[in-house]
Amino acid sequence: MSATRNQLSIILTSNCLDRVWAALILAVGAAASGSAVSMYFAFWGLSILRRTDSRNTGKSFLEQLFGRLLPRGLKGLSLSRLNCAGLGSKLLHYRARQKRIPSPEELLTSARQLGVRLVACSMSMDMLGLKRDELIDGIEYGGVATCLADVHRSGATLFI
Amino acid sequence: MSATRNQLSIILTSNCLDRVWAALILAVGAAASGSAVSMYFAFWGLSILRRTDSRNTGKSFLEQLFGRLLPRGLKGLSLSRLNCAGLGSKLLHYRARQKRIPSPEELLTSARQLGVRLVACSMSMDMLGLKRDELIDGIEYGGVATCLADVHRSGATLFI
Amino acid sequence: MSATRNQLSIILTSNCLDRVWAALILAVGAAASGSAVSMYFAFWGLSILRRTDSRNTGKSFLEQLFGRLLPRGLKGLSLSRLNCAGLGSKLLHYRARQKRIPSPEELLTSARQLGVRLVACSMSMDMLGLKRDELIDGIEYGGVATCLADVHRSGATLFI
Repeated sequence: MSATRNQLSIILTSNCLDRVWAALILAVGAAASGSAVSMYFAFWGLSILRRTDSRNTGKSFLEQLFGRLLPRGLKGLSLSRLNCAGLGSKLLHYRARQKRIPSPEELLTSARQLGVRLVACSMSMDMLGLKRDELIDGIEYGGVATCLADVHRSGATLFI
Repeated sequence: MSATRNQLSIILTSNCLDRVWAALILAVGAAASGSAVSMYFAFWGLSILRRTDSRNTGKSFLEQLFGRLLPRGLKGLSLSRLNCAGLGSKLLHYRARQKRIPSPEELLTSARQLGVRLVACSMSMDMLGLKRDELIDGIEYGGVATCLADVHRSGATLFI
Repeated sequence: MSATRNQLSIILTSNCLDRVWAALILAVGAAASGSAVSMYFAFWGLSILRRTDSRNTGKSFLEQLFGRLLPRGLKGLSLSRLNCAGLGSKLLHYRARQKRIPSPEELLTSARQLGVRLVACSMSMDMLGLKRDELIDGIEYGGVATCLADVHRSGATLFI
């Protein structure tokens, strides 16, 4: 299989704000310098792709429960450390604005403009009961084979 | 050093159910499609290789303490998020059965059948006071050099 | 871009003792066997590069707050699991001494002697309000481009 040295593949299973922010900074940085970049969102990482206005209708009790517990989109993610009931993540956002560091929302927009492929893990969607119409537009859906194809094609894969 | 493009190496130091599940899905998926796969278990990751019936005899006080605190095998792992005293992990298992997604136990069995190499980190075993007869059969033991040899041989390495 | 098969790049965003310890063991092991190794410290990972005697003078309120909350150096890191208010990390250190496993402090010294490149993420420093004179000597500073250049040059990159 031919691999492209500077292709970057990111597997994101976390929805901790610090890890998500790092993932997006690396994805945008790599895409901006000409690399092909793919991001594969599984488990908690699917939070990032959720619409903020998604509904929980037509779901089983368990699916509704997961739906309520998982954050919707990049707002409302918490930190892996020093979260302090949301205060830590508010402070980090405030500092980023002060220092003109792009927010996760701005980075996701840039990623899409730069052609970063966003892939939602279909198995994780099944497990958490997330439907396609709950996720943002313009993304791909794929299973472990899709993910592994990107891994094998890439010069580097980061599991975040 | 010659590297095989589609060889996959996984270093697992976590025993969070979600990360372990993701690691096993990727390992089995890659092995099923013909890749050589190795999994290196260190620190908390050693939990996965513990026998459920292992005893703590002939151990120092500290070794017994670690022995009690570390989960034995894939049962009893907790989630990195939304664990809620075990409820979250029970729900995820329940959903997986509903959706016919293989459990971590089934994936570990498949991994072994497909020839995934399972390597226990000997330094971590020393540190946590785990003996070889507490771990499942058919695994290898190795230090950091074994791990790095696999990393250098592989097209991709995931630190999970 | 030419890649060196056995070059290792580590991106460390965590300051959990277990993950940091694993990162340093892999870095020193790889460097000792002749690999070029770089470690890029971002977000909480910057804790590792902090001087223990650094002061918080001339800082804004928020910068002082982050300064107080982030650990200084390798002492005082806590575990991702079983930390139990510091007891778990004390036990692990104690066991490491018993088993003659090098401590994180010894590993960091070895890493420097073996020529492992230590790079502090300048964007994270901005965000957390860390100044250069708060970090240890002999390190490099770089942004996402520096980090990605190392990723593309390396045979393997670990996100820890």
